[in-house]
Amino acid sequence: MAEAKVLSGAGLRGQVAGQTELCTVGKTGAGLTYRGYDVRELAAGAIFEEVAYLLLYGELPTQAQLDGYLQKLQGMRDLPVALKEVLERIPKDAHPMDVMRTGASVLGNLEPETSFEQQRDKADRLLGAFPAIMTYWYRFSHQGQRIECNSDEATIGGHFLSLLHGKKPSELHVKVMNVSLILYAEHEFNASTFTARVCASTLSDIFSCVTAAIGSLRGPLHGGANEAAMEMIQRFTSAEDATAGTLAMLERKDKIMGFGHAIYKESDPRNGVIKGWSKTLADEVGDTLLFPVSEAIDRVMWEQKKLFPNADFYHASAYHFMGIPTALFTPIFVCSRVSGWTAHVFEQRANNRIIRPSAEYTGVEQRAFVPVQQR
Amino acid sequence: MAEAKVLSGAGLRGQVAGQTELCTVGKTGAGLTYRGYDVRELAAGAIFEEVAYLLLYGELPTQAQLDGYLQKLQGMRDLPVALKEVLERIPKDAHPMDVMRTGASVLGNLEPETSFEQQRDKADRLLGAFPAIMTYWYRFSHQGQRIECNSDEATIGGHFLSLLHGKKPSELHVKVMNVSLILYAEHEFNASTFTARVCASTLSDIFSCVTAAIGSLRGPLHGGANEAAMEMIQRFTSAEDATAGTLAMLERKDKIMGFGHAIYKESDPRNGVIKGWSKTLADEVGDTLLFPVSEAIDRVMWEQKKLFPNADFYHASAYHFMGIPTALFTPIFVCSRVSGWTAHVFEQRANNRIIRPSAEYTGVEQRAFVPVQQR
Repeated sequence: MAEAKVLSGAGLRGQVAGQTELCTVGKTGAGLTYRGYDVRELAAGAIFEEVAYLLLYGELPTQAQLDGYLQKLQGMRDLPVALKEVLERIPKDAHPMDVMRTGASVLGNLEPETSFEQQRDKADRLLGAFPAIMTYWYRFSHQGQRIECNSDEATIGGHFLSLLHGKKPSELHVKVMNVSLILYAEHEFNASTFTARVCASTLSDIFSCVTAAIGSLRGPLHGGANEAAMEMIQRFTSAEDATAGTLAMLERKDKIMGFGHAIYKESDPRNGVIKGWSKTLADEVGDTLLFPVSEAIDRVMWEQKKLFPNADFYHASAYHFMGIPTALFTPIFVCSRVSGWTAHVFEQRANNRIIRPSAEYTGVEQRAFVPVQQR
Repeated sequence: MAEAKVLSGAGLRGQVAGQTELCTVGKTGAGLTYRGYDVRELAAGAIFEEVAYLLLYGELPTQAQLDGYLQKLQGMRDLPVALKEVLERIPKDAHPMDVMRTGASVLGNLEPETSFEQQRDKADRLLGAFPAIMTYWYRFSHQGQRIECNSDEATIGGHFLSLLHGKKPSELHVKVMNVSLILYAEHEFNASTFTARVCASTLSDIFSCVTAAIGSLRGPLHGGANEAAMEMIQRFTSAEDATAGTLAMLERKDKIMGFGHAIYKESDPRNGVIKGWSKTLADEVGDTLLFPVSEAIDRVMWEQKKLFPNADFYHASAYHFMGIPTALFTPIFVCSRVSGWTAHVFEQRANNRIIRPSAEYTGVEQRAFVPVQQR
């Protein structure tokens, strides 16, 4: 009991807070699995919608199921007029995650989940709508343009790039977006997913759960590491500069984002995948700076600290090579992880008990009230 | 370890998830204390702002501190134009808790917390603004009126009644609102507060934490019990009808809201306080129906089930006697509990480790990926 207290007092680390069929993290032989499939195999052979279907519907879709699912999601992309009007009132300098959180919350007013029987449709609606929530606000506030929220792109990844850039994305970029969305889709009881499950445990609606999860993902200890990595990478002018600069940062004990992981101890299974695609993109654009700088930082971190890059580190350069503004890196995470969040909401609802832990009281002893006139 | 798993798997009940100086719940001799003070003494002798100050600033204020705090909060009542325009776009039939959640989220875009040094000002801002968020939307959507968001009332409780009814509230009603806001202000690691702490543990901003907490409070297993109690009470035409009807509901094993509690086992210390004020209000309005009906239900529940009324049950009739629409009962809970939520956010930040528990995997064994063409 004393041991349990110590363990759970420190962020509930290692404490089992529930059951899941969705994911394993850090099990020997397979660093990350979604419903039994190695995430590396999914990233190599599937599109994101197959993975979302796997998480939300339980199995990988057949071709006919996938075609139907793609069509369903394509029909859920446009935003209600009232939501567009809200997004137009959010300032340019707002935190993009505040925009995502507000978009999810407003959608819950306009298209509420009035019965849990609607939960799959609402999850799909959020998957369909998030790319437009992000890009409609971004392009209106930054470029003064009211964009069309539909596109001809088959996938969410291609659709997002199309809305962002206002033109058809290349096959390579659509492929990398699908890989990225797959890598970020699900990760067991991380803080944002656990937030969604605590919220779901009161039997609240799914928009509340996703809104809450976005709030947690916004925190710099959770999402946002790829943005921080990008800002660091861009500071260096060459691989040599990056090597010297990283050594200096370590010397100063500066925080270096994108390395190590709370659960993975030897490597992040997602890193090799995204690093490979970042290299391909670097070759495509003829980059001779960002990728070599990234590799130099990676090398110093391993040699000096035995720390490995996590999923976020090479995502930074990969996104950058596709012309994605740094501010939108974490919102893309939302477009992906909403599949995992909502799948966890389904699980919590299916076998629910309200999540209500206890606290250790460390405050003052009981004392008598004194009216304000006598204080 | 096995025992810990079982315990924690069921809603983390009894598991210590952190420390707090704010509150004890269900300790012998004092059912509920805020920083050492019995909530019954606070409700008898303080106004809500003294209690919010106690929670957020650590001690009960002196008269000078209280005067300054009241003045500060009064200056934080009005809403930015953009937030009013958002509230005007939320439909009349929206869930009022969706409105509160969205209001908090939008405010986080317009007046972001850019440093934790601002946390007290942001908590006070939310305390000041919530009454207007609720009533501006309610009166615009239900009565077509754009109300003035300031009032001459000294306290949040009086201010809320003034905005809702468009006239100066009676001293008695202001007193009861203060009592109600004090009773609901804080309750340790309940689900919405725990949601706020999980969100805070990623070092996210305070608007994200409060937005997330509102989403959890919205759930029918958490907030909303006083609304459900009101709907039941209003169904009966007399005390005799209520007695017969409650017995029939028990016979049918219908869920009866407002009785019993997850933590309190013998009585809810808040019940006696609000029951007394509900009786006073009943006498004031010459009620011969709702209060006797409430007492009849109370009597049957005790005689048949040994279940006691919790804080929510007599809140229903008390709010009703003050002319508050049932739909706004849970939003009032937000106006109060935001003091506890934000005080917990301060605590979490002051001694933080990201809250990231583990899950027990119950899914399929690892399996090989099959491309869609071969499924």
